[in-house]
Amino acid sequence: MLQLKLKPREERRVRAGHLWIYSNEIATDERFRAIDPGTLCRVEDSRGKPVGIGYVNPRSLLAVRLLTGDVRAHIDSDWFERRLRAALALRERIYAEPHYRLVYGESDGLPGLVVDRYGDWCVVQLGTAGMERFKDAIVEVLQRVLRPAGIVLRCDGSTRELEGLPSYVETVGEVPDQVEVLEEGVRFRVALATGQKTGFFFDQRDNRTRLRRYVRDRRVLDVFSYVGGWALRAAQYGAAEVSCVDASQAALDAAAASAGLNGVALQTHRGDALDVMKALRAEGRQYDVVVVDPPALIKRRRDFDAGVEHYAALNRAALQLLGADGILIACSCSHHLDAEQLQRVLLREARTCGRRLQILEQGGQGPDHPIHPAIPETRYLKAFYCHASTG
Amino acid sequence: MLQLKLKPREERRVRAGHLWIYSNEIATDERFRAIDPGTLCRVEDSRGKPVGIGYVNPRSLLAVRLLTGDVRAHIDSDWFERRLRAALALRERIYAEPHYRLVYGESDGLPGLVVDRYGDWCVVQLGTAGMERFKDAIVEVLQRVLRPAGIVLRCDGSTRELEGLPSYVETVGEVPDQVEVLEEGVRFRVALATGQKTGFFFDQRDNRTRLRRYVRDRRVLDVFSYVGGWALRAAQYGAAEVSCVDASQAALDAAAASAGLNGVALQTHRGDALDVMKALRAEGRQYDVVVVDPPALIKRRRDFDAGVEHYAALNRAALQLLGADGILIACSCSHHLDAEQLQRVLLREARTCGRRLQILEQGGQGPDHPIHPAIPETRYLKAFYCHASTG
Repeated sequence: MLQLKLKPREERRVRAGHLWIYSNEIATDERFRAIDPGTLCRVEDSRGKPVGIGYVNPRSLLAVRLLTGDVRAHIDSDWFERRLRAALALRERIYAEPHYRLVYGESDGLPGLVVDRYGDWCVVQLGTAGMERFKDAIVEVLQRVLRPAGIVLRCDGSTRELEGLPSYVETVGEVPDQVEVLEEGVRFRVALATGQKTGFFFDQRDNRTRLRRYVRDRRVLDVFSYVGGWALRAAQYGAAEVSCVDASQAALDAAAASAGLNGVALQTHRGDALDVMKALRAEGRQYDVVVVDPPALIKRRRDFDAGVEHYAALNRAALQLLGADGILIACSCSHHLDAEQLQRVLLREARTCGRRLQILEQGGQGPDHPIHPAIPETRYLKAFYCHASTG
Repeated sequence: MLQLKLKPREERRVRAGHLWIYSNEIATDERFRAIDPGTLCRVEDSRGKPVGIGYVNPRSLLAVRLLTGDVRAHIDSDWFERRLRAALALRERIYAEPHYRLVYGESDGLPGLVVDRYGDWCVVQLGTAGMERFKDAIVEVLQRVLRPAGIVLRCDGSTRELEGLPSYVETVGEVPDQVEVLEEGVRFRVALATGQKTGFFFDQRDNRTRLRRYVRDRRVLDVFSYVGGWALRAAQYGAAEVSCVDASQAALDAAAASAGLNGVALQTHRGDALDVMKALRAEGRQYDVVVVDPPALIKRRRDFDAGVEHYAALNRAALQLLGADGILIACSCSHHLDAEQLQRVLLREARTCGRRLQILEQGGQGPDHPIHPAIPETRYLKAFYCHASTG
């Protein structure tokens, strides 16, 4: 097996439990650039003490992701099966229904791999050249362990480009155009092969459940609704009126179809979120609860300032649509914006709008997206439940 | 009204929404020290622009707490009634039963005042000389708005000493030795006049509800159990075995009495938490879920290092009692230890014990203890739900 040596003192992060090694932390020579992306490697520190086994991609700044600290391990389909079964046991302990993120990459000891489970179907994301090499083993193990009717390989994520990987979507077995997801008793129509990411956002499940306290008999606006996750859960909990805002007609059609499945009424507004919110305000509309749950607006650190202003503008527009005693639910899935920074944005915008803010609850990603305590990058989702009063 | 002027540039914190002014931020002369603690004052910035009305205590480093930004406001019982009714409306929106923190100081615009509501009874904490002066108005307003059978004034908190206030416990009306609290259907016996703080810890309610996912048919240990909040909620959710550890026999007796009320079995272990955990380990006992929920171990910043080591030792002992696939629920109510620091402690101890950690959920204080986004000191409770595997 390929052997890589860390530079002096560069073992500290991985000794603390992190699984990533950057290219400038490895003692490389001219042969490094010629290594085939995804090749397995043994890593040792500068004094020759073993660090673990990982896979390498010389084209990426994030050059090595460690798979195990056991340098005698065999990384084969049995190894994948053990990791998959551990991930499955945890989810089966937590969830009654087989609808969840089954594998969350590094946090489940499977760097670069995401698997979402939609009942009889699985959606797989191979995010790295290393995982791409194990594609057949992963499909085989999923079939052995779960016996799914079909698997979708959604290998069209933006991170693959950084790895020098092509973009593709493939299916194995039978996969219908749409499947149904059950979330706390609410039914959602989801397109696995053509929807956003893997089709549904399981990470907000518990946060949507928290709506229960705030929406009964209230008017709820779900901004960046996608397939209506927040809106339909609000309807479940007795909201008087629920409306979705999204730029995608396909997403709004899916939301409307799901509303029908659940026998609830839904209004939809297609367009840019800021434009729609401004138009609703111009019409004199008010809401009791507004949810702002945009896609990641800060994908790279250099987008930070522009992204912060975008979050600010969205939440300001949302605050301006709230009645006197409203609830703003402000979310961010940008890892680069931490909770404290988001809170600062909300405070500033509330003061601009003459609102007193009380943070009632704060949620993160659900337990099927566990945080690896040594890998800050595995923590990304924030949801603030703010009481915004005019007093 | 007494007029105080801030030094140049010292208005920034309060302009951002904070309510505290430190003595070194005020332009004082020799008369300042002679001001009667608790006196109302108007505050202006160094250029004479109004900041608001607050109350002053020249004996405390935290010299002024602002009550309002409206310098024309009358701080009388009507003013208190409006603030109380706003706090009440928020709780009534959230909770079906009248058992909650009704007023959480600064976050409800009532700095220095805490009111907990136990059905027909209220427990009041007056934490400052300023609030002490409004004692009669506060009691009168509570009686007018809530018509309680009795009120307990638990004016025996440790912060009163810093204000130069005496320690006392008084009752108004009829207050039985013990009352019953209902939390999500579980009954607790609580001593309002003699228990810890106001008698019960409402702040962990939602965190205890999160046990539901993790305890069915499992063995659960509740360390620093006090009256058995976590243990009895675990029993409610079908735990196979629940045990309490606490240093106080009175607390364990209350827990046992509450277990009887709810018809569930409970084991109790009296003693120092570390000693009991070590003894249980020596006996070969194992648990599937261990909750570590100590009182604040870092009360002042200078206790930080010792406190961190105390948290570390407790969580290490808890990890050593966990079976192969256990859940550690690690809490801290020390404001001075932030979530990131607690996470670091847990990671380090897990690695020492040879455990892989996944943070499944992270909770804070409940919505009846809202966080004021401009006052970091109002955020204090952390609860990490960690999957600690041996793989």
